[in-house]
Amino acid sequence: MATTVKPQQPTHTAMPPQQPTPERFFNAINAHQQTEALKTAVDLEVFTAIAEGNATAAAIAKRCGCAERGVRTLCDFLTIHGFLTKDGTQYGLAPDTAVFLNGKSPAYIGGAMEFMLSPRSREAFAKLTDVVRHGGTVMGEEGSTVAENPEWVTFARAMMPLMRMPSQLMAAELRKSGEAQKVLDIAAGHGMYGISVAKANPAAQVYAADWKNVLEVAKANAQAMGVGDRHHLIPGNAFETDCGSDYDLVLVPNFLHHFDVATCTTFLKKVRAALKPGGRVAILEFMPNDDRVTPPTAAAFSMIMLVNTPSGDAYTFGEIESMTKNAGFARTEPPREIGFSRLAIAYA
Amino acid sequence: MATTVKPQQPTHTAMPPQQPTPERFFNAINAHQQTEALKTAVDLEVFTAIAEGNATAAAIAKRCGCAERGVRTLCDFLTIHGFLTKDGTQYGLAPDTAVFLNGKSPAYIGGAMEFMLSPRSREAFAKLTDVVRHGGTVMGEEGSTVAENPEWVTFARAMMPLMRMPSQLMAAELRKSGEAQKVLDIAAGHGMYGISVAKANPAAQVYAADWKNVLEVAKANAQAMGVGDRHHLIPGNAFETDCGSDYDLVLVPNFLHHFDVATCTTFLKKVRAALKPGGRVAILEFMPNDDRVTPPTAAAFSMIMLVNTPSGDAYTFGEIESMTKNAGFARTEPPREIGFSRLAIAYA
Repeated sequence: MATTVKPQQPTHTAMPPQQPTPERFFNAINAHQQTEALKTAVDLEVFTAIAEGNATAAAIAKRCGCAERGVRTLCDFLTIHGFLTKDGTQYGLAPDTAVFLNGKSPAYIGGAMEFMLSPRSREAFAKLTDVVRHGGTVMGEEGSTVAENPEWVTFARAMMPLMRMPSQLMAAELRKSGEAQKVLDIAAGHGMYGISVAKANPAAQVYAADWKNVLEVAKANAQAMGVGDRHHLIPGNAFETDCGSDYDLVLVPNFLHHFDVATCTTFLKKVRAALKPGGRVAILEFMPNDDRVTPPTAAAFSMIMLVNTPSGDAYTFGEIESMTKNAGFARTEPPREIGFSRLAIAYA
Repeated sequence: MATTVKPQQPTHTAMPPQQPTPERFFNAINAHQQTEALKTAVDLEVFTAIAEGNATAAAIAKRCGCAERGVRTLCDFLTIHGFLTKDGTQYGLAPDTAVFLNGKSPAYIGGAMEFMLSPRSREAFAKLTDVVRHGGTVMGEEGSTVAENPEWVTFARAMMPLMRMPSQLMAAELRKSGEAQKVLDIAAGHGMYGISVAKANPAAQVYAADWKNVLEVAKANAQAMGVGDRHHLIPGNAFETDCGSDYDLVLVPNFLHHFDVATCTTFLKKVRAALKPGGRVAILEFMPNDDRVTPPTAAAFSMIMLVNTPSGDAYTFGEIESMTKNAGFARTEPPREIGFSRLAIAYA
């Protein structure tokens, strides 16, 4: 179907690059609208409605219980930002949208917004000026690391679909240097990292450590994925609880970024003491390069830690390596890419 | 100075384009952080501090009264998003930032955030799901068009620096088809569109129509720019007030988007009645193409109107042409580009 753009209308041409332009300023000023639009589209099931065959603003509006003007403007906005296609008056799902945002897709990840855009997180970002002045979260001294915080139950439920793929990639990467029988999964959350190791190796016994309320989510996932009998729970604060010993492998996925260097180093000493001689710790993190501004996704994660924690950070590989060395690990392998994250493996 | 990125660290490579990726989803989820970061940087005068020669996080933190951790993370984030440069530990201003966001630059536009990110606007966007359901603003029946709304005084003060350039471009464009002696400036706001016409033609007398409180800003600008003696005020509601007659030119810049088609048409009839035979109306708007999704800046403006008005929109040129025709104008010239906007000129 032909697009309706008339050829006699002038095509908008950007100013020549040598001319100063406030375009970047406007785009950032308006960037929050993308967040609101995506959240609204997921909440109203607009993507699911389109996947079901509702193609016009009128049909989508009827399916979603909305006004046509609202849906038309929202769908145009989502088209501008690449989530939808538009052909005449017919909207369609862009390929990534069809995979990840259609509520009936097995890879649906829209639920992750419940954690990533929680009211607490939005409130924390709304106070960014105070945060920068203070140098850390202003949402209470302990930020998001407080005991039994229900936020981590939300995290475990909401983020599970997103963690399936990286946890499988990490499990596959870890098998390259040998199978692990006894595995500790630190701050297990949804449990996917330990579960993926257990699924990859039928001989593995996985011990998942996290708050008691969070472990209920991990346990349910382990049972649903057929490894419940080899999935054991260690409830409590990972810094204080006895997590056992003689592990072949300790998983520390997306955990160190909540804490300062000294705390991470102390924690890694505890991890090392729990390992067999020659055992491995596997640290998965957003690890920016030493310049701290590349690659963008990993580097920008530092901002989320500034806003949400008293003294956490997105640590570089060099910093992680230094922590493991100071914690007594013998050597750390060069990092491997796992999606947007990097995996550092250190040997006790 | 060499960057500190170690060559042995893997360079992050995006997944091949044929693979589904949730990257766009994450970018939109996190997009609001760009808005908060830019607002914080302007509020804390980070760009001005760097322009003054404070290059390291420590120096900027001292100048801005902030914690170094906060400034380092903020400046890294602003580097990732193109506002700053980073060389080792030294931050610098990107070229556009130096022009538009250094508080001591004559082209400084940081103050525009006071209007563009007003608490009311943020609150309105936070209710986007309700807005889409309802099909228009949920911030009260009249939205941003209520009488003597102090928001328009904020608008007039905050947006003036941004309007200087387009108002000059528009005045130059209008002179191509002849000088206008008697000019009406509808919803003058800061007054820049009328003032630019007056500055371009020393024989022009400009009558600025807007709410009384807003006109004080326009008058001050006209006086400061040396055309105060040829700048006259018509306070009140532009729909109801007698705006005079025998105009050569009526300016309607960034006004029609607040209203529905019927209201715009009725208003344009009043404009036509105020013009001399053969007089012109000059309509400046974000005018998307007929597809309503290109060009992006103009097309996305529709979302701002959905959220802030009961029934406004970013109208296409075809819609504007139809309004002028139905209001009795003899002919409308093809649109011309004025920055991100388009100018439609119709003859009575």
